[in-house]
Amino acid sequence: MSFFSFELDPALAADPVFDLHRRGKMTMSATVPLASRDDLSLAYTPGVARVCEAIAEDEALYPDYTWTSNTVAVVTDGSAVLGLGNIGPKAAMPVMEGKSVLFKQFGGVDSIPICLATQDVEQIVAAVTAMAPSFGGINLEDISAPRCFEIERRLDAALDIPVFHDDQHGTAVVTLAALRNAATLLGRAFADLRVVISGAGAAGVAITKTLIAAGVHGANVIVCDSRGIIHADRAGLGPIKAELAATTNFSGRAGGIAEALIGADVLVGVSGGSIPEEALAGMAPGAIIFALANPTPEVPPALAHRYAAVVATGRSDFPNQINNVLAFPGIFRGALDVRATTITAAMKVAAADAIASIVADDLRPEAIVPSPLDPRVAPAVAAAVAEAAIRDGVARRTAAAAPAEAPQPV
Amino acid sequence: MSFFSFELDPALAADPVFDLHRRGKMTMSATVPLASRDDLSLAYTPGVARVCEAIAEDEALYPDYTWTSNTVAVVTDGSAVLGLGNIGPKAAMPVMEGKSVLFKQFGGVDSIPICLATQDVEQIVAAVTAMAPSFGGINLEDISAPRCFEIERRLDAALDIPVFHDDQHGTAVVTLAALRNAATLLGRAFADLRVVISGAGAAGVAITKTLIAAGVHGANVIVCDSRGIIHADRAGLGPIKAELAATTNFSGRAGGIAEALIGADVLVGVSGGSIPEEALAGMAPGAIIFALANPTPEVPPALAHRYAAVVATGRSDFPNQINNVLAFPGIFRGALDVRATTITAAMKVAAADAIASIVADDLRPEAIVPSPLDPRVAPAVAAAVAEAAIRDGVARRTAAAAPAEAPQPV
Repeated sequence: MSFFSFELDPALAADPVFDLHRRGKMTMSATVPLASRDDLSLAYTPGVARVCEAIAEDEALYPDYTWTSNTVAVVTDGSAVLGLGNIGPKAAMPVMEGKSVLFKQFGGVDSIPICLATQDVEQIVAAVTAMAPSFGGINLEDISAPRCFEIERRLDAALDIPVFHDDQHGTAVVTLAALRNAATLLGRAFADLRVVISGAGAAGVAITKTLIAAGVHGANVIVCDSRGIIHADRAGLGPIKAELAATTNFSGRAGGIAEALIGADVLVGVSGGSIPEEALAGMAPGAIIFALANPTPEVPPALAHRYAAVVATGRSDFPNQINNVLAFPGIFRGALDVRATTITAAMKVAAADAIASIVADDLRPEAIVPSPLDPRVAPAVAAAVAEAAIRDGVARRTAAAAPAEAPQPV
Repeated sequence: MSFFSFELDPALAADPVFDLHRRGKMTMSATVPLASRDDLSLAYTPGVARVCEAIAEDEALYPDYTWTSNTVAVVTDGSAVLGLGNIGPKAAMPVMEGKSVLFKQFGGVDSIPICLATQDVEQIVAAVTAMAPSFGGINLEDISAPRCFEIERRLDAALDIPVFHDDQHGTAVVTLAALRNAATLLGRAFADLRVVISGAGAAGVAITKTLIAAGVHGANVIVCDSRGIIHADRAGLGPIKAELAATTNFSGRAGGIAEALIGADVLVGVSGGSIPEEALAGMAPGAIIFALANPTPEVPPALAHRYAAVVATGRSDFPNQINNVLAFPGIFRGALDVRATTITAAMKVAAADAIASIVADDLRPEAIVPSPLDPRVAPAVAAAVAEAAIRDGVARRTAAAAPAEAPQPV
């Protein structure tokens, strides 16, 4: 088959990143033979008509006889891509392709990047709802807050397949896993941790909810945004932050990050700003600092170590990388395996605990989370998520014992 | 990676068609390595950010550095699937997966089935417009007439990538190819053929337009629908049939299929009904009959041979199968190779002529079109379509001489 070759900008063509990305990072293949007339008559007309008729008669057969039960759309509007901001759908595509191939590599999930030509909430909800029968799950990606909350909520309500905004929940799950292990390592009771979350965007909101769902007392959680501590008496809170104010900071502490950190055991930075050393000095002794902004952590790791016994970042060149790839492939693998209709809080907590368990036998301050490349993670997460889905009553199948081989390209 | 296995209906599991369709017919794969931290830092963060930034700065780089330039969505609403009718999006998926794997097998085109949960024209146009940046082309499939005409027209106007309703144009292109060769074989002047088209749905309308674009005189074309001959004086014509009335049947012939066929050289059946022998008896001697309804041709081939020197059907078990797979993979291959913005009438005629040329040196009454499996077809169609796109000024690239290898799964 002829693919014509074209001249590229020589400077880009010589760059290893651009060279790798040439023509993108993924391809699709048939898993059935198509070489003979007989092959065609089975995979296409006339044979295929019988499969169509069977599904038309009994929709429960749909996931058994289509690729959709193993397929997740990675959907973005390009409004909040990495640290690059609102670069639009086309510039976002290389990230979405990357996400898709990570889904396959680590979770065995077929994943398709969908970059939308609209940033209107109504239009996004309508478009994803329309295309939803084509997929077994929807991974929302790099959609800016607070739009991301409404989009996820409405899609999750409208669709009978899992909808998961990874910037929220993937980050929250891995943060929870790391915090479980850090608390264990330091001999602290998880439920008694006093936690400050700096940043009330997608990740900050989800981390807050997930930590509380996992047992941290909301009373002991303080969330800060660019205007300081979020508390019930603060004027001008939108619905998302009003909910945070109602579920955290029961003592009504006010002020900035320095006031928030007084006596805190844990700082989780998901703000992208910088947190001054004076503020860190107020934390309880032997603290835990997760400075997750990329590429520049809110607190440089060397500085964080002056105040914290355990430090994590979002970067691969420091120990304890909080990397979403530890979560999303296994979460969707498990959800797809039992055909979950949604992803519950308990499924996220189960995922976090499974991630934490991988390194639980050898906890060290510089090893509270597994490597993103650890092949044990996704299967463990998948199993835990599937079990939690069954317990929560959102699974449409109960996993059988025998694993089957994944279909292979032919 | 663990895929749980489940119990299927034993009767279906033992059926070869259902066995083949289990878990669907396609998969996606990475074309880049993802085994090491270095791999991840190139294909995903932080390396990918540079590719995103480059595209944000210069959108022309988008097709070079994403998989979209080789990717076509196969979009349906499930409203007119094969001969099964309006079975909805889920029951349509096995056909769309089949179409997608044929795109890859014959055209090297990555193709994704998108089954829409709406049959509303506005919602379909909005959803496909929203997802369009994710693809290099849109193949509309199995959408009922007359909705298909408006959907295709509006999407083609709104998008800068090819939009092609295969039930219309794929059928029309292969029909034209067959008719070119049939005319040559019988020593008839193509432009002088008197043609009757039975059926004014998606295929009938497109065949009419394409034959006229290829040189048949509209004056000598008669189109029939279930109410008989379409002519300018007939009451109650909708816009599509009014256009047919204005561009065909200049003598204003009226009546049924029998009146239409008096003196006709060619009958193209795309109606699904049955055409009585008495009507065929009125055709000119040594006629051409294409009875394309599936699975039951409008005229049984044995009967057709009493009146026709050349007979074609839509079935694989008779000679001269008019099979769209001869057209769509090569048409999109060619359109993608030169990044065409649309698919023009000249591109379709060029595709037909390329298909016809494959068997032109060995024309026989039972071999006027190539086998659907003939590997020479798609490259020839692609080259002809690319050249026509360049001539028509709808190509964004001029094909270079050297073919490049297609990316492979790793």
